[in-house]
Amino acid sequence: MIDRLIERIETLGAPIVVGLDPAPGIVPEKLFSEAAKKFGETPEAAAFALLRFNREIIDAVADIVPAVKPNIAFYERYGLDGIRAYIMTVEYAMGRGLMVIGDVKRGDIGSTAAAYAGHIEPSLLFGRKFEIWNEDAVTLNPYLGADSIGPFLDAARGRDKGIFILVRTSNAGSADIQELLVCSPGIGAGKENNAGAGKAQATAGKAQATAGKAQVTAGKAQAPLYEHVAALVSAWGEGEGLMGSCGYSKVGAVVGATGPAAGARLREIMPHTFFLVPGYGAQGAGAGDVKHFFDAEGRGAIVNSSRGIIGAWKAEGKGAGHVGKSARAAALRMIEEIGAELR
Amino acid sequence: MIDRLIERIETLGAPIVVGLDPAPGIVPEKLFSEAAKKFGETPEAAAFALLRFNREIIDAVADIVPAVKPNIAFYERYGLDGIRAYIMTVEYAMGRGLMVIGDVKRGDIGSTAAAYAGHIEPSLLFGRKFEIWNEDAVTLNPYLGADSIGPFLDAARGRDKGIFILVRTSNAGSADIQELLVCSPGIGAGKENNAGAGKAQATAGKAQATAGKAQVTAGKAQAPLYEHVAALVSAWGEGEGLMGSCGYSKVGAVVGATGPAAGARLREIMPHTFFLVPGYGAQGAGAGDVKHFFDAEGRGAIVNSSRGIIGAWKAEGKGAGHVGKSARAAALRMIEEIGAELR
Repeated sequence: MIDRLIERIETLGAPIVVGLDPAPGIVPEKLFSEAAKKFGETPEAAAFALLRFNREIIDAVADIVPAVKPNIAFYERYGLDGIRAYIMTVEYAMGRGLMVIGDVKRGDIGSTAAAYAGHIEPSLLFGRKFEIWNEDAVTLNPYLGADSIGPFLDAARGRDKGIFILVRTSNAGSADIQELLVCSPGIGAGKENNAGAGKAQATAGKAQATAGKAQVTAGKAQAPLYEHVAALVSAWGEGEGLMGSCGYSKVGAVVGATGPAAGARLREIMPHTFFLVPGYGAQGAGAGDVKHFFDAEGRGAIVNSSRGIIGAWKAEGKGAGHVGKSARAAALRMIEEIGAELR
Repeated sequence: MIDRLIERIETLGAPIVVGLDPAPGIVPEKLFSEAAKKFGETPEAAAFALLRFNREIIDAVADIVPAVKPNIAFYERYGLDGIRAYIMTVEYAMGRGLMVIGDVKRGDIGSTAAAYAGHIEPSLLFGRKFEIWNEDAVTLNPYLGADSIGPFLDAARGRDKGIFILVRTSNAGSADIQELLVCSPGIGAGKENNAGAGKAQATAGKAQATAGKAQVTAGKAQAPLYEHVAALVSAWGEGEGLMGSCGYSKVGAVVGATGPAAGARLREIMPHTFFLVPGYGAQGAGAGDVKHFFDAEGRGAIVNSSRGIIGAWKAEGKGAGHVGKSARAAALRMIEEIGAELR
């Protein structure tokens, strides 16, 4: 997955991903009203409008960007119909040669995480394998620790799949918990779980060692929580069968563009971790903010823009007929802006 | 929601919730093979087997427990068909008079969290309100901070709905991040987000004050991360329109039974926060472990058991015909065990 992503980025000269987050205000009213003529004023109609919108965006950018990132929340809100639109969006994008990062931000305890891993591995049913979700990669939330990630590491190992774990997000609220100052790695300290430790703990142990190293690198006794999470993610990604051939792991990190200094620092702490960088454009970050998220060769990150691209038709005051055209122009501008900073 | 939950718990004398987590090993093979006769060897058949299993459990416990908690991961793994089974399980349980806590553990940045809030509020479509998911409450992951929770607070306010935010989970991996020692509240310190702060920050500010208070209560300079999260959750829950009439908020916390000392301590830090307590039974915790999670009146918590109840038929070496009977007996035992500790 990670080698394929890097290759596509370099072939196109475009380290960007288009966020397919069709919020109601971004999808033209016309698409809703036309869908309602076909399906009535129902969630099914809304889902159809989303899908039609996404197809137009995908058709417009498929030859200039390597990947799209649908955030499942915008589909899940419409229940079954919405999730059908999500799955069909994934299929349509792949059919057009795009890679798909499913922005699902899942995370649960070990046995349950194994069920969620069905996003990137086949589910075994009646002795047969069913590819049900089939995203190339998904985003995960690390709050539940190693055993919540383990099943996804297993799924990615030896298969052309990957994950991106939230380290530092692009929203204002990222400060509330992610920036709390941690005084020591302390991983496992004070642990009183009755549950068996097992493999997850072994992995955590290894990560702890790395967390220690990260602090030494930092040269200070206190570091924000996200740096500790970064050390864990980095260690998880160095596990057997997870490193790609270009120096980056299938285990990536989500690092928000809205914290440029933090991004540069995380680039140091996580030398083998590919960054998925949200927050560009509508959320406030620009090309100058994200350049330090890349390595010295201009590799190591892919920057997401959602509203800035899929809502470009609206920002330009154009009509529904310009959705694709405006998205393409906005994507080309973003490629040029980031390219100029990396050259 | 919270008053209704407390009332049901007290009427039944049963502070327990049945986790509807139909992992493949727990649903009898017979249900899969019978479903396959009807739907072929397909995800649709698997989903039908799950639904039939859940109905049997629900019918067996509906008059003795206040609520069920389906974890969506076990349904989501089967794609659309699985999610249909989840939605039908929610409807069926409610039809039998049970409350439903959707264990979805969602969490995303503000605008996206508003989409996820569709789980507990109607989605506006074509000028009409559609109740699409309709759980009584859902679980949320706090890693993204105040703005990831805000839309759910708005949804719960003035509506008969609630949330449970992960504070300390029941798995081994909970130690990896949740137990990191935080040296100062530090909320907002070093913040460099370009994004606008807005209401979320105001809420965070209030929570920060409470976090400070929690530390004073602790009487120590360092506290594990989950105590800081607890202080945030407690403060969020004290917001306008969120307190119920029995002294507890619609904003609850997930506190794993596998950390009894932490549970007792969190009960002190979060006097108005209702606890959803996973980890009982199969995950290793017993009635003696959870008693301190309750307040002096024996209120304030609801303990979940999944495998211990829905897998009881298997643990007892019984056949598929005993699913409901064994589940009911296991639930009654659990009620008795916890009741004995609280008396």
